[in-house]
Amino acid sequence: MTDWLSADEQQSWRAWIAATTLLPAELTKELTSGHDLTLSDYEILVRLSEADERWMHMSELADRTLSSRSRLSHQIDRMQAAGLVSRECCTHDKRGQHAVLTDHGLDVLVAAAPTHVNDVRKFVVDAMTPEEFAALGNACKKIVAALEVKSPD
Amino acid sequence: MTDWLSADEQQSWRAWIAATTLLPAELTKELTSGHDLTLSDYEILVRLSEADERWMHMSELADRTLSSRSRLSHQIDRMQAAGLVSRECCTHDKRGQHAVLTDHGLDVLVAAAPTHVNDVRKFVVDAMTPEEFAALGNACKKIVAALEVKSPD
Repeated sequence: MTDWLSADEQQSWRAWIAATTLLPAELTKELTSGHDLTLSDYEILVRLSEADERWMHMSELADRTLSSRSRLSHQIDRMQAAGLVSRECCTHDKRGQHAVLTDHGLDVLVAAAPTHVNDVRKFVVDAMTPEEFAALGNACKKIVAALEVKSPD
Repeated sequence: MTDWLSADEQQSWRAWIAATTLLPAELTKELTSGHDLTLSDYEILVRLSEADERWMHMSELADRTLSSRSRLSHQIDRMQAAGLVSRECCTHDKRGQHAVLTDHGLDVLVAAAPTHVNDVRKFVVDAMTPEEFAALGNACKKIVAALEVKSPD
């Protein structure tokens, strides 16, 4: 027997679908038109900028950005062509290749970050009370935990 | 001056990014492997199945599924090739083309729905308390409302 969603649950679920469809599109619009970045490019620049000496192993970067190794590899190729990162090979390290944030990549991130963060505030953080935003974060953590229990793949 | 996210806000925001990245991927996995559907295919089948006489104007379907007209048009072409919907032209109606759910499309939806709804329960609804899920829905509605204020496009 399928335990269908109740009318209230359905309404919350549809709100989730709407928000998760519309918000990334809006955030992407600004990043793309202003800085020629996708949301995933932005996320990669942020992760590398936070790393020691601004580089990370490709495998760790894939884990952190929730990307598959092959998808990340294509993306890093694109970002390297745009001069945002460079891919370096480390012969003394069996864990393989690194992605390194270039000076240009850092400049682009520094230019893009204020608009992006303002958008995140405008459409999310400041669109609700701090308690409501904390509840959103809490619910998202529970989703992630439920997915982690399910699938190690 | 950019009003950067606080550490707590940052944590909630990263949880949102993680959940919105991982959940669609997981829901898609099941729909694709079991029923050869994408998440957007599924959403279109649901909307058409709920419509009177199982058809909708393309423009209305685009609004309801938060899709652009051109993206929806491509998608309906693909779904028509798979026999899930048909696209019909209505000469006495200036509003143009309809998308119609086929009997096969309805069969596919009926077969896919239980697994999909079980997944939504497992990873979302039952992964938290009813209050937490309602808070998630509420926060998502506020995001959608903030986006609607911003952009009529």
